[in-house]
Amino acid sequence: MAEILTSLPAADGFRMPAEWEPHAGTWMIWPERPDNWRQGAAPAQDAFVAVASAIARFEPVTMLTSAGQWARARAALPANVRVVEASSDDSWCRDSGATFVTDAAGRVRAVNWRFNAWGGLYAPCDQDELIAAKMAEIEGTPRYDAPLVLEGGSIHVDGEGTVLTTEECLLNPNRNPSLTREEIERHLRDYLGASKVIWLGAGLVDDETSGHIDNLACFVRPGVVALTWCDDPADPQHAISVDAYERLSGRTDACGRGIEIVKLPLPGPLYRAPDEAIEDAAADNAYQRYAQERLGASYANFYLGNGFVLMPLLDPRTDEKARAILAGLFPEREVIGLPTREIVLGGGNIHCITQQQPAGKAG
Amino acid sequence: MAEILTSLPAADGFRMPAEWEPHAGTWMIWPERPDNWRQGAAPAQDAFVAVASAIARFEPVTMLTSAGQWARARAALPANVRVVEASSDDSWCRDSGATFVTDAAGRVRAVNWRFNAWGGLYAPCDQDELIAAKMAEIEGTPRYDAPLVLEGGSIHVDGEGTVLTTEECLLNPNRNPSLTREEIERHLRDYLGASKVIWLGAGLVDDETSGHIDNLACFVRPGVVALTWCDDPADPQHAISVDAYERLSGRTDACGRGIEIVKLPLPGPLYRAPDEAIEDAAADNAYQRYAQERLGASYANFYLGNGFVLMPLLDPRTDEKARAILAGLFPEREVIGLPTREIVLGGGNIHCITQQQPAGKAG
Repeated sequence: MAEILTSLPAADGFRMPAEWEPHAGTWMIWPERPDNWRQGAAPAQDAFVAVASAIARFEPVTMLTSAGQWARARAALPANVRVVEASSDDSWCRDSGATFVTDAAGRVRAVNWRFNAWGGLYAPCDQDELIAAKMAEIEGTPRYDAPLVLEGGSIHVDGEGTVLTTEECLLNPNRNPSLTREEIERHLRDYLGASKVIWLGAGLVDDETSGHIDNLACFVRPGVVALTWCDDPADPQHAISVDAYERLSGRTDACGRGIEIVKLPLPGPLYRAPDEAIEDAAADNAYQRYAQERLGASYANFYLGNGFVLMPLLDPRTDEKARAILAGLFPEREVIGLPTREIVLGGGNIHCITQQQPAGKAG
Repeated sequence: MAEILTSLPAADGFRMPAEWEPHAGTWMIWPERPDNWRQGAAPAQDAFVAVASAIARFEPVTMLTSAGQWARARAALPANVRVVEASSDDSWCRDSGATFVTDAAGRVRAVNWRFNAWGGLYAPCDQDELIAAKMAEIEGTPRYDAPLVLEGGSIHVDGEGTVLTTEECLLNPNRNPSLTREEIERHLRDYLGASKVIWLGAGLVDDETSGHIDNLACFVRPGVVALTWCDDPADPQHAISVDAYERLSGRTDACGRGIEIVKLPLPGPLYRAPDEAIEDAAADNAYQRYAQERLGASYANFYLGNGFVLMPLLDPRTDEKARAILAGLFPEREVIGLPTREIVLGGGNIHCITQQQPAGKAG
C-alpha cells in the first residue's frame, strides 16, 4: 500500500504518460495562505472552485485541504469533487504533488520528487514536501522517492520518450547544486521513463519559479510544441521566445521526428494593480507581491484532461486568438476558457494548480 | 462522490452488515492527545501499531492521523497500512467514524451520525464530528447524515435485522434528550436497515461511555450473544450482567429465533496504577484519569475481520478462558490475542479503535 520502491521506474518498465493520455482523475490543493493570496484567499478559492468544477465535468477531481479549511472547501465545491484532508504550505499541486507513471500493464505508481519551495521562495515547506507521499498513500500506489529537487511544472513529456525542460530551472543552483547536467538528465530518464531531454534556455519573463517550462511551452502531441511568442523586440520575452524557437527548430524528439512549433500569443504585458499587492505580509518568509510588478502570465499554462482543454483567459486582446489556436490544435476536445487572474496573482495558472493521475490501477 | 443523500438507508434497501461479514478493510485513528494518553501517547501508539499490524495481515487497514503525526505514524506502521491525514480529537474510530451500510447489489454507503464526545466528555469535538464525512469522502461513498447523536460502540447488529444496544447509553439525556425511545428506535431501524431493537439496561461497570454495548455484549452470529459475566454478587458488574442475561433470555431476534447466551469471563477487577494516572492535565476539558480507579475492561470488546478474531489480553487469570471461548465460537477464524492495557487506560479497547468497511463498491 505504502510500498517504497528502491528500483527505478524506467528499469521497471514505467514512464510518465503525456498529459493528453487518459486520466483516472485530477488532483488539486485548496489555497488558503493569506500572505500569498489576497483577501484571505477568498477570491483565489473562487477561482480554484471554478477550475475544479470545470474539470469535474469530465473526470474525477480530488481537492486536498488543511484540517482548518476542509469544511469550507467541502461546502464551496460541487458534490462530485472529492475533498480529502492533506495539509500543505501552498496550493500548487503540479509542483508539490506526485508525478504518476504507468507501465504497459496499466499499473500506476507515484514519483515523489524532493521539494524545496522553488529554490527557497519560502520556508518551511515540510507539508508540501509530504504531499506527493500522501497522494500515493491515499491511492495505494507504490512510490519511488527520487533524489532530485524537481517540481512537476518544470517538465513536460510527450509520453514517447521526450522530456522538455529549461536550463534556467533545472540547472539552477537553487535546486540541485551538486548535480551536473548529465546527472540531472539521467534522473529524468530514470524517473520519467524517457530517453531524450530537450533543453530550452530561460522560462517565461517574470515567472517566479526560476523558469518553469509549463509557463513557456508544452507538447500538444508528439512532434508538436506550443510556444509562448512575443513579436515586440523591446519586450524581454522576445529574446526568450526566439531562443526557445531556435533551440526547438534544430532538434528531433526521442522518436526522431522534427519538431513543429505553434506560436501562442503573449497576453499583456499584465501588471499587478495596487489592490492586488501583498506588501505588508507579516511573515518573514512571505513572498512579497508588489504593485506594478509584471505578472508571469501565459496561455501555455493550459491543462489537458479527458476530452477537454482548460485554458486561462488573461487578456481580452489576446484571449480569442489563443482560444482559436488551441481549438485548432485539439479539434477533438472541448476548449473551455476560465478567467484566472486571481491564480496568476498568486504565482501560477491552471496547469500549476492541477496534477493528472493517469488511468490505471495502483500496482 | 461526496453525495449527501436525504433518503433513508432502509428505504433505499441498505442495511448495516454484521461485523463477521466480509470486509473491504478496517479504519483506525492514530492516538496522540497527551491529556488522554500517558507519556505523550507513545505507549498507546505502540499498541495501535500492534492492532493495525495484526489486522493488516488479513485485510487493508487505513490509519487516519493529524498533519503533525502523519510522518511519525507512517514510519511506525507497516508498509501495507495506508496512512491518510484526517484530524481528530481522539482516536476512537468505532465511535466517531462512519457506520457503513450495504445493499443487495453490493453498493456501500456511509452513515454519518451526530457526535458529541460521549455525552460531553470533552470539547471541542469538531474534528471528531467530521471524521465520518471524511471517511466517506476518501472512499467516494454517498453519505446519509443521521439526525441522531450516536457512537458506533453503542450498537451491535446481527446483519439480519436485529440491533442490540443499552438504555444507559441510547436513552441517556446526554445524547438525544429531545427524542423518545420510540423515536430513537425508528432512527435505528431507518439508518441500520433493522427491524427489531433489543434493549439491555446498563453497560459495563465503570465504562466511561455511558454504557456502550460493545464493552458488555455482542452478537457472535445470528441468535448467539456473548455476554460479559461476573459471578461475584459483591461486584456491581454482577447485577448488570444478570439483568442483561434476563433481558436476553426472554427475547427473540428479528427473525424470530430465541437467543443463546455465551458467558465471557470478566477480567480483574483491574485498577489504574499510579504511573498510569493523568491527573494533572492542564487542559480544561481533559478527562481526568485517577490512580486506583477501576478500569472498564472486557473481552467482549474483540474485533472480527476477514478470517480472524482479534481479542484483548487483559488479565492472565482469565485470558486463556476467554480465548478458549472465542476459539470455540469462531472455529473457522484465527484467534489472535494482543495485550491492550494501554488502550484500556485511554478508555476503550480493540473494538472501540476499529471500524469495519464492508466489502462492496461505493455507490
